[in-house]
Amino acid sequence: MEGAVVLLDFWPSMFGMRTRVALAEKQIKYEYKEEDLRNKSELLLQMNPVLKKIPVLIHNGKPVCESLIQVQYIDEVWNDRAPLLPSDPYKRATARFWADFVDKKIYDLGAKVWKTKGEEQETAKKEFIESLKLLEGELGDKTYFGGENLGFVDVALIPFYSWFYAYEKCGNFSIEAECPKLIAWAKRCMQKESVAKSLPDQEKVYEFLLQMKKIFGIE
Amino acid sequence: MEGAVVLLDFWPSMFGMRTRVALAEKQIKYEYKEEDLRNKSELLLQMNPVLKKIPVLIHNGKPVCESLIQVQYIDEVWNDRAPLLPSDPYKRATARFWADFVDKKIYDLGAKVWKTKGEEQETAKKEFIESLKLLEGELGDKTYFGGENLGFVDVALIPFYSWFYAYEKCGNFSIEAECPKLIAWAKRCMQKESVAKSLPDQEKVYEFLLQMKKIFGIE
Repeated sequence: MEGAVVLLDFWPSMFGMRTRVALAEKQIKYEYKEEDLRNKSELLLQMNPVLKKIPVLIHNGKPVCESLIQVQYIDEVWNDRAPLLPSDPYKRATARFWADFVDKKIYDLGAKVWKTKGEEQETAKKEFIESLKLLEGELGDKTYFGGENLGFVDVALIPFYSWFYAYEKCGNFSIEAECPKLIAWAKRCMQKESVAKSLPDQEKVYEFLLQMKKIFGIE
Repeated sequence: MEGAVVLLDFWPSMFGMRTRVALAEKQIKYEYKEEDLRNKSELLLQMNPVLKKIPVLIHNGKPVCESLIQVQYIDEVWNDRAPLLPSDPYKRATARFWADFVDKKIYDLGAKVWKTKGEEQETAKKEFIESLKLLEGELGDKTYFGGENLGFVDVALIPFYSWFYAYEKCGNFSIEAECPKLIAWAKRCMQKESVAKSLPDQEKVYEFLLQMKKIFGIE
């Protein structure tokens, strides 16, 4: 009764990883289609004509775009297992707030860490760590952001862990030294098969980033 | 049984207006507290320590931040009347996609229209109209984005209508000439009391914008 599920994705995408983790948590079988972002497929352009971006989740021929919307869709359609959002409206709002915070801060600041140099990079590193510390505060002493089980905020944030090594190498800093509890959380997440199999190796991401730097002419 | 509802807001904020419209649609009584954004209240800083932004919805002493999250919260808590999100997961995902599109495109492009000049402004106007045309396409021949009743996308987008006159004066262009169906939709929305009483007068917004331009030193 699952219907055909297809994911148009690109392996180093944190956004794609979110949807992979959510599908894995729900144990949904799907067809993974790797996109070449410099030569986008007809299917991608047809399924996401507005943004032309991966990931696109196609369920029974119909597209769902934007990773956090996909994760919510997956949670609502397959609502008989592994709930990602809590049922209480206030807790749902709080989870949405922090997932949105990840979207607004972590991606952009992470990109600034590897794309800039000197003072600009120092500022980016500082703001990046400050944002992670806020997330660490929200995590508190819980096992996961979702409590005893992986939840919406965990799914939103954990993909960035696969980029941490690349950020650290480019920024010459240690995230673990600043945010030990957050790294402990990430390692707990990585012990889950749903996460481990959905995230690429940190060194592979770093190699990809070095290629990107060459393409963009960033030393 | 509603509990105490307080809204920390600033009258020309499109984001605050969304929450006002949602509260009005649900006929929820609340205390409106106007914030001075250059001298933020202790309550605001305490209720939204992470972003320090309005609007903040306070329900029974607990804060909900970010306007689209507030609207969803309101829809989930007061789920016995005037539903804003559809019940079907696919339709919900589609509504979230377009509300997110409004967030990502319309605010920034509108700001560029009034903050820039010359070629930069022409580009901003072109992209602004293109984005509105995409929304017009999504509206199609429906009464509202939500169908027969005001929905999530309507609530997300209609506040910008109160800024249209200001954009037009600053950009020296006519939105209605380019997007007549969208303006017809906006006028239908304005016939609803929930919308009319939540949005400020277009000329008042334009006067506010002229003051802002002076403060920011934009001619």
